[in-house]
Amino acid sequence: MNPDLSAGLARPLRLVALGDELLRGDTSDTNSAWLAHRLSALGYTPDSIEQRPDRRGAAEAAVRRWREEGGVLVVGGGLGPTPDDATREEIAAGLGVSLAEDPRARKLIAERERRLGRRYTEETWRQARIPVGCEPVANPQGTAPAFHCAHPAANEGFLLVLPGVPREYRGLGELVFPLADGGERAAIWRLVGPGEDRLAALLADLPGSDSLGHYPSLEGHRLRVPPGAVDEAELARRLEPYLVSQSGGSLEADLVSRLRERGESLAVAESCTGGLLGARISRVPGASEVWRGGVQSYADEIKTALLGVPAVTIEEHGAVSEEVARAMVAGARERLGSDWALAVTGIAGPGGERPAKPVGTLYLALAGPPGTAPRHRHLVGGWDREGNRRFAVQQALVLLWRALRETS
Amino acid sequence: MNPDLSAGLARPLRLVALGDELLRGDTSDTNSAWLAHRLSALGYTPDSIEQRPDRRGAAEAAVRRWREEGGVLVVGGGLGPTPDDATREEIAAGLGVSLAEDPRARKLIAERERRLGRRYTEETWRQARIPVGCEPVANPQGTAPAFHCAHPAANEGFLLVLPGVPREYRGLGELVFPLADGGERAAIWRLVGPGEDRLAALLADLPGSDSLGHYPSLEGHRLRVPPGAVDEAELARRLEPYLVSQSGGSLEADLVSRLRERGESLAVAESCTGGLLGARISRVPGASEVWRGGVQSYADEIKTALLGVPAVTIEEHGAVSEEVARAMVAGARERLGSDWALAVTGIAGPGGERPAKPVGTLYLALAGPPGTAPRHRHLVGGWDREGNRRFAVQQALVLLWRALRETS
Repeated sequence: MNPDLSAGLARPLRLVALGDELLRGDTSDTNSAWLAHRLSALGYTPDSIEQRPDRRGAAEAAVRRWREEGGVLVVGGGLGPTPDDATREEIAAGLGVSLAEDPRARKLIAERERRLGRRYTEETWRQARIPVGCEPVANPQGTAPAFHCAHPAANEGFLLVLPGVPREYRGLGELVFPLADGGERAAIWRLVGPGEDRLAALLADLPGSDSLGHYPSLEGHRLRVPPGAVDEAELARRLEPYLVSQSGGSLEADLVSRLRERGESLAVAESCTGGLLGARISRVPGASEVWRGGVQSYADEIKTALLGVPAVTIEEHGAVSEEVARAMVAGARERLGSDWALAVTGIAGPGGERPAKPVGTLYLALAGPPGTAPRHRHLVGGWDREGNRRFAVQQALVLLWRALRETS
Repeated sequence: MNPDLSAGLARPLRLVALGDELLRGDTSDTNSAWLAHRLSALGYTPDSIEQRPDRRGAAEAAVRRWREEGGVLVVGGGLGPTPDDATREEIAAGLGVSLAEDPRARKLIAERERRLGRRYTEETWRQARIPVGCEPVANPQGTAPAFHCAHPAANEGFLLVLPGVPREYRGLGELVFPLADGGERAAIWRLVGPGEDRLAALLADLPGSDSLGHYPSLEGHRLRVPPGAVDEAELARRLEPYLVSQSGGSLEADLVSRLRERGESLAVAESCTGGLLGARISRVPGASEVWRGGVQSYADEIKTALLGVPAVTIEEHGAVSEEVARAMVAGARERLGSDWALAVTGIAGPGGERPAKPVGTLYLALAGPPGTAPRHRHLVGGWDREGNRRFAVQQALVLLWRALRETS
């Protein structure tokens, strides 16, 4: 039911995304970009990507063209349960076959109904109807099965129809186009800095560095390293202070794995980030082995009641201060019984500015096992509310990452 | 030199973006989405948007098609100074005319050279060459002029060629497609359900409901309501149980505002969500007026130590159980001194499945001020780890939202 379609990739390769919202510009077609990236890694960069309206014959026209020219066609969108989801009908018309309930598709939907304890309506069961001669594919993230069919004439090539909900599109795309390890794909290195100009200086005289792609983000930079483009050992040496992973792994995944290896645990105390730091750590499957939890001490009284921050410290220095960050981290480490603790307090904005403490002001603190020196940082983020919060989380994780590297 | 082309908009209207990086999925075509949005506001939603490779005849083919079918064609990309920027040549070939230096285009480039104090090379001056019969348009953000030409046969329609650099594409798009103030923008309504099939049933006999757009998301659905499309009072009446806002405002913003009006406060106790619930509430500027904070009780001992959940309750029923959710919410309300409290415990996956508790299992609890009945929910999310966490956060917020509405 979950075939590896990558072996059947052929040219021309066309992606068509259906959705009136794409043509109105309410949203851009990130599904196709995502799939194009995956297919390129398999050696098949699409020949065209197209956004077309729902329910106006675009899917049917694309299928007719595919029948004429062969190759691979991937159509996304319009597989939902409502009457305006007409992709199944259009694809069948383009193929010149009828639409019929597929017992395998029905079984997939029934399994999901049972698992989620739902009671589906007639509309939902419509999603079990696929063009005769096509094969359903189980949708791990949603109800509507995808389906694929071989080209009626050509020896190679296929048609694949995916739901348009991004989570479902990608879940299915990963299933049917699995990426082999060690493919010719460019590696993605994850970095925690440096800034763009420092990076340029570091790489200036490294042969082949022109072919590296640099994608900055508040969650750490990604560096795209095409195979054979540069001397990778030399690149790793130059970037050593910043290099988190050479395989795309995230900073939080690296932290969880380092802590697990050391047999050490972590707790957090969050103020302006409101839970975002813990949320990011616990994105990592298995984070429970090292992360004990934390306190979202948003109100000052919670800092005192749950973390033991003296009320007088808050009064004298303000809740956004190094003193309070120090008291928060000590309280978290003690009350949650962890080896390490991180604390964040700051002014995310847009309001809350105080004298000498502009929006973006941030105090971070780290406490570790006996024998490790406590660490603090005072920073000012220059983004909007959510940007400042993401910056705070990243910098807190970097503080811990450096400490773990230096004490390993 | 900077014509208002919006008066000449005609159908079919096609956007073509040139760029190998778009087909590799290194980036998605935000230029076209931006322009589509602007053109939709002018009443001209594009009929198709396409991404095609550089230098392979795609621009020439698009121009040939436009010559046959008329209407409007906008081509973006490949106007730079380097030899691999071949769009000018391809457009001229598609038009069947030659390419020649245009004195007006040369003047525009010379003005920019003088203004920036640069000294342009021969390559830069190549950008003054445009197809004979086309008109240059000054590029306020870059060197390469855009150009446009009337259809050689049709009475209406035109071809417009823009640089691909997003800043330049948009700057020129704003110039040639100026928007009058008070444009006819569709409103975005925010809903907390219903499912797609229930929504279809609710709207089935509402005249004009075909023109509504429905965009499901784990953070609540958005409904696009074009002006004058439907009887909005009737639509609001039918959607009343689900309707959060008629102006795009988020569920969390509505919650913060309702609590503020009531003078009530909120605390949270999170397990599988790890902080995501508090992070979402505190996205709202001014959340500190109502949200006191929370406990990220990821490890069982933290549930006991910081929330007072009896260890025996965890032992008997498991950490993922209604009993533990009840104890968490009571502990949060009491220890954080809030009027309301929300608790979440669940199995986000991919591991952690237990007998009768599949991945996605979720227990929510809500406790309120004296006199309000406690509420609980048991749900099963059908997504991946992050999807299940986002689903849990949304359902917890909905639980509170319904309680606030029913007691207001």
